[in-house]
Amino acid sequence: MRVYDLLEKKKRGEELNGEELTFLIDGYVRGTVPDYQMAAFLMAVCLRGMTDGEIREMTRIMRFSGRQIDLSAVKGPTVDKHSTGGVGDKTTLVLAPAVAALGAKVMKMSGRGLGHTGGTIDKLEAIAGFRTTMSVEEAADQVNRIGVCVVGQSEELAPADKKIYALRDLTATVDSVPLIAASIMSKKLAIGSKAIVLDVTYGSGAFMKTPEEALDLARQMIRIGRDAGRKMAAVVSSMEVPLGHYVGNLCEVKEAVDTLRGEGPEDLRRVCVELGGAMWSLCSGKDMERCREDICRVLQNGQAMEKFKEMVKAQGGELEKSLEQKARFEKEIRAWRSGYVNHMDTEKIGSGVMMLGAGRRRKEDRIDPLAGLYIARKTGEYVEKGEVLFRMEASDQDLFPAAEEILRRAISIKEEQPQTPPLIYEILH
Amino acid sequence: MRVYDLLEKKKRGEELNGEELTFLIDGYVRGTVPDYQMAAFLMAVCLRGMTDGEIREMTRIMRFSGRQIDLSAVKGPTVDKHSTGGVGDKTTLVLAPAVAALGAKVMKMSGRGLGHTGGTIDKLEAIAGFRTTMSVEEAADQVNRIGVCVVGQSEELAPADKKIYALRDLTATVDSVPLIAASIMSKKLAIGSKAIVLDVTYGSGAFMKTPEEALDLARQMIRIGRDAGRKMAAVVSSMEVPLGHYVGNLCEVKEAVDTLRGEGPEDLRRVCVELGGAMWSLCSGKDMERCREDICRVLQNGQAMEKFKEMVKAQGGELEKSLEQKARFEKEIRAWRSGYVNHMDTEKIGSGVMMLGAGRRRKEDRIDPLAGLYIARKTGEYVEKGEVLFRMEASDQDLFPAAEEILRRAISIKEEQPQTPPLIYEILH
Repeated sequence: MRVYDLLEKKKRGEELNGEELTFLIDGYVRGTVPDYQMAAFLMAVCLRGMTDGEIREMTRIMRFSGRQIDLSAVKGPTVDKHSTGGVGDKTTLVLAPAVAALGAKVMKMSGRGLGHTGGTIDKLEAIAGFRTTMSVEEAADQVNRIGVCVVGQSEELAPADKKIYALRDLTATVDSVPLIAASIMSKKLAIGSKAIVLDVTYGSGAFMKTPEEALDLARQMIRIGRDAGRKMAAVVSSMEVPLGHYVGNLCEVKEAVDTLRGEGPEDLRRVCVELGGAMWSLCSGKDMERCREDICRVLQNGQAMEKFKEMVKAQGGELEKSLEQKARFEKEIRAWRSGYVNHMDTEKIGSGVMMLGAGRRRKEDRIDPLAGLYIARKTGEYVEKGEVLFRMEASDQDLFPAAEEILRRAISIKEEQPQTPPLIYEILH
Repeated sequence: MRVYDLLEKKKRGEELNGEELTFLIDGYVRGTVPDYQMAAFLMAVCLRGMTDGEIREMTRIMRFSGRQIDLSAVKGPTVDKHSTGGVGDKTTLVLAPAVAALGAKVMKMSGRGLGHTGGTIDKLEAIAGFRTTMSVEEAADQVNRIGVCVVGQSEELAPADKKIYALRDLTATVDSVPLIAASIMSKKLAIGSKAIVLDVTYGSGAFMKTPEEALDLARQMIRIGRDAGRKMAAVVSSMEVPLGHYVGNLCEVKEAVDTLRGEGPEDLRRVCVELGGAMWSLCSGKDMERCREDICRVLQNGQAMEKFKEMVKAQGGELEKSLEQKARFEKEIRAWRSGYVNHMDTEKIGSGVMMLGAGRRRKEDRIDPLAGLYIARKTGEYVEKGEVLFRMEASDQDLFPAAEEILRRAISIKEEQPQTPPLIYEILH
């Protein structure tokens, strides 16, 4: 077999079989297939697509390139969740304890933020002392004891995906639905949870710009998961505007805590109820409507919050002390005219927050857990000239001007009230 | 400017401007753009194509990445010729002296063979003592004195093309008409000949498999050349069967000499008259019909042969002595049934000849100038069972079995007389 012939085949739009994809991907991981041949392959995939069979095989090969996390020792229904990313997305902090409070077993491996998107691990680390690094055995043990553990993603998970993703990131081959589906699912399937719920976002702050694209991605991932014997569901939700009112790290923990106490902003609560409902439904076998009610109940009666506290304590975090902290400086951005917030460029908002110190431009950058943004008005809401639109929070005043500049450009105010897209576009269950 | 954005643009099918292509290609030559990004770009070009403007710019950038050969000191009309390759193609050996005999000035830089295709330089080096390496000044001086010089292509010509071609060869991105056109024309334009005639071949022994593809390539190259102020013509000719009856090195020189003496096989003579006619027409301004007659005349009256001898002598070759040589061993392949030669796989024939020692599998392989193949019957001709189809010639008998095996598979004999494609498909003038 020659890589050249496989590239030629893919270029002509023909299907590669499992053996051929193995030759290519395993060869790439081992270093016998050079970067430039893999780059040519990835570009051909972007432009020619992949068949369902190819996506399934690619997922399988990348999944088995690394460690498989065996959760068979965990008693009870295991469930995992993945979001394709967003701005202000603190749902994991709410969901994981909420469904664990109901009896599900949640072993969640999360990532760090990069660029305009935040990461659950960064958010949890805003809680003083919170440990996000632990061995798989230790994490599984915690799941067995208290039902939930959120840790950083193991380096041993799907190394093929890691190497290929790094190359995609340099060769403009990121936005291919088959490649995204295979990448996400290779990691999710390597973790042994029986059920997986996908939060597939669309809009100005998401990777997928339209709900149709998001739906397509959701369907492909569900197919891969079911083929591998997992129970699957997906929620296609809007990331046209940030989720909730806070974007950052500690401030998002605070907003999650509000939601865990039955309060918190309506959009965040709604998404958590849908995603949590789907997770619990896959675990319990009960219908969605009843599961939504179950989630609402544990958010109202304090059980979800108790579970969250239990998790934070188990992982060494000091919640109360952390919740009292705040950034040293703040600066408001006020409306320059009266009118409706017509559009928010959520990606720009994410970038503005990054510039306040809450995110990373490069992987090696350090994060300021206290930096963040309060968003007073979102798309569709009316604002009077001079009223607060944003409140920036940072540990260094010098960061405000550049962040303010990008945040001002992230919002437009007009006379007409705009159409706002539905928060939940579709639920695949 | 970021390479990533340029890749993204090209992937979406948008046009890159000259500045963007310069950033990419110059960066690649300097090493600031890595192989994998260029590979992704090349695959995107294969699948998205290039606009006329992009092809023109890419040609220009690659052309000016290296030395420009100034022929302004050469007195008289300068003309160059390029063939997209074939098997048994010895036309340069006939054409260059023929048009020089008429008064044209021919500075021809040629390449070596690789794989199934031969190279003019290898053929000339089958003449004992023939020097194919000389300085540009020396070569230009010879053109001024005797009207013709055929030398190896300067290493300083279009280094960007050289580097990009090597990558295309590894990433299945060779068969893109825009990339082929830019590659050829970047080298042709770097040589200062005022007129250029292109021999664009199609068929089983050529890169372009159909006449339509060949015509498309011819038109694109003509456009590039005219945009750069050159006089351009092209002949689209068939390489469904090898040209002439001999494939190899010294045996091709012998067949070229026959043709220069007004003899030689009809197909070779015909292609030489068309290409030579076009070259002379661009130089003289006379119409094609009169120019064809001029070429036929110098082939008949010995002037073309005289010019060839003059060139060989000027470059140190000993023609008479070489023409007497032949390979030590020969072996015939006879027809296994009676019927018409229905099809020849000319690429396979080229590979068979390579296996006799006449060609290179890898760039660093050495060539046996005496090895070669005589083709007794070509597509459309009738053969009786037991009659000779091929005669293999080699310096080592051990090479016969493997070559014979591939040559037998390169030919099919059937009852019905096949349709033979036209030798000359179209002339663009």
